[in-house]
Amino acid sequence: MAAIESVKADLYRVPLASALTDSTHGQMVDFELITVRVRDSDGAEGLGYTYTVHAGGAAVHAMVQRYFAELLRGREADEIEHRWQDMWWALHYAGRGGHVTSAISAVDIALWDLRGRRAELPLWRIFGGYDPQVPVYAGGIDLELPLPDLLAQADSFQEHGFRAIKMKVGRPDLREDVERVAAMREHLGATFPLMADANMKWTADQAVRAARALSESDLFWLEEPTVPEDFAGHARVRHEGGVPVASGENLHTLEEFQRAMSASAVSFPEPDVSNCGGYTVFRKICALAEAHHLPVTSHGVHDLTVHALAAAPNRTYMEAHGFGLDAYLARPLHVENGFARAPELPGHGVDLDFDRLESLRP
Amino acid sequence: MAAIESVKADLYRVPLASALTDSTHGQMVDFELITVRVRDSDGAEGLGYTYTVHAGGAAVHAMVQRYFAELLRGREADEIEHRWQDMWWALHYAGRGGHVTSAISAVDIALWDLRGRRAELPLWRIFGGYDPQVPVYAGGIDLELPLPDLLAQADSFQEHGFRAIKMKVGRPDLREDVERVAAMREHLGATFPLMADANMKWTADQAVRAARALSESDLFWLEEPTVPEDFAGHARVRHEGGVPVASGENLHTLEEFQRAMSASAVSFPEPDVSNCGGYTVFRKICALAEAHHLPVTSHGVHDLTVHALAAAPNRTYMEAHGFGLDAYLARPLHVENGFARAPELPGHGVDLDFDRLESLRP
Repeated sequence: MAAIESVKADLYRVPLASALTDSTHGQMVDFELITVRVRDSDGAEGLGYTYTVHAGGAAVHAMVQRYFAELLRGREADEIEHRWQDMWWALHYAGRGGHVTSAISAVDIALWDLRGRRAELPLWRIFGGYDPQVPVYAGGIDLELPLPDLLAQADSFQEHGFRAIKMKVGRPDLREDVERVAAMREHLGATFPLMADANMKWTADQAVRAARALSESDLFWLEEPTVPEDFAGHARVRHEGGVPVASGENLHTLEEFQRAMSASAVSFPEPDVSNCGGYTVFRKICALAEAHHLPVTSHGVHDLTVHALAAAPNRTYMEAHGFGLDAYLARPLHVENGFARAPELPGHGVDLDFDRLESLRP
Repeated sequence: MAAIESVKADLYRVPLASALTDSTHGQMVDFELITVRVRDSDGAEGLGYTYTVHAGGAAVHAMVQRYFAELLRGREADEIEHRWQDMWWALHYAGRGGHVTSAISAVDIALWDLRGRRAELPLWRIFGGYDPQVPVYAGGIDLELPLPDLLAQADSFQEHGFRAIKMKVGRPDLREDVERVAAMREHLGATFPLMADANMKWTADQAVRAARALSESDLFWLEEPTVPEDFAGHARVRHEGGVPVASGENLHTLEEFQRAMSASAVSFPEPDVSNCGGYTVFRKICALAEAHHLPVTSHGVHDLTVHALAAAPNRTYMEAHGFGLDAYLARPLHVENGFARAPELPGHGVDLDFDRLESLRP
């Protein structure tokens, strides 16, 4: 038992080694990283972080540094559920979702890391432990890649240990999507798990049409076929389009996941631990999915996520996302024969190189 | 036609003349005001603002100043719908609701004000015009007021021109609520419109029980009986509790209002133009309510709201909220015989005293 002594947030703009594109975000050349370090009265420290695509990180930083730091100082670090509620209600007006859940996520992750470090246990064991070996897939962001480069990227993913791959769809002409996915299926073979991500490109009608047009390529899932709030549209893609649907990176609360599952909108819930409310909420979403007989995948920050999925009996492929953070990690997650392994280090075991990050302040 | 030349956001902490309390926010001694001034290439200027309860304003300020200002510079000021979409998608990742709609609201209101000032027309006329006389109610924040003070406050509201009053409920013992509301009803007379606001205090079961216990006091509406996302609970309060329900200050998107109305959760939608997405979305919510045969009320910032409700055929009582901004306004809204009148000044006609606000920077 120890009180929170300080909460320190920092904002960085991390460049990507090469630009990425999808159907909604256009070209991405960097992302914003918001780190949170929570120190307790015994001098122990926990690390959390979240990120944004393009913009918004300064707002998340302001939420943590300007409001949560003061709110949390002197409060018990172990009562994480209680601290979570404190943060939710402190910024509930104008909040209740959106960026505030990213801010809460970063603090929540830091508090759990602190918990694990003090207990000298890895988080996946604290979380109950299912299997430290977690299947992963490679998330390509490749909508504009010419077909030969797309196939070469798939080869590279396999050389790096991946046994499941996701590609982007949502090109202006659906026939191009169909050809590219068919070529990828041909290249990978009939049984290789292949996912496709439309990044909210379509209306529900367009998405159903696309799902049917892509049916011969036997997709493992089709991701975000419409805007995320369109649960009825998502359900149509499953039921009329005949393809499993993954969705969740743009859902930010337990309640939204509950509605999505109840509406039959999602086959593979994919929370992002850095924007859904941290480990506290991610694990509740896993339980909710289990109650709905659904497997759970994930979005982003795989180095953190691996602990939550290593404790979830219903975990399926975890996303490994190329957001360029590896260059600043002491031990980037290693993928071998289709699996990543949750580390045995205390907490989440992720150490960021803050000296190198220093030059990336905006 | 003129391009946006600059967008300037400022953050202030505005003290309240006396502390206010309700069942959820506890004691409020000040609020955060975020102002936005948009200037076009001809030197014309529009003003918008939003606010928060307690905390979060620095994040809203960061969203506008750090991201929207650059995004909007050089873009056409008259294409407000387009600028709205630009802002939504720029911060959509981690956004899609929450604080980002407050940030968008402040800019949207400034763009509409600019539109009106350039056209030399009041916004309510630009919006189509229904009736500049808008009925208002006085929103008391008085959960802790002793009963004699509560009744004296009601007398004061009537002396200031109000002919409808809202009081707070949600005290620890429901019997106290019942007694206080009954005393107020007795004091005001049988036909005086009396609303009550529970500020999300109850579970759905508690709220149904409270609605039934309060039935003899003939409430005009019961507001936010449960957390705002619990649409099924709200619907139960209407249908099982037998009382009309107002809700909406904590809904932040057109889509949320659509779901609330479709779920039979709300009798009186009450969007806040400063957090639902500005005039652009507020007016769409009015249209949506009209399609559902529902009257529209409002929350907060009545000096701005009056223009939107003066153009809505289905407007009912507008909230007049005592958030202390009057001291910084050149012409606070005047209430007479139960009505406020939308001004004939260009734009929304609100001028803030920025010199006096200067001392309120946090």
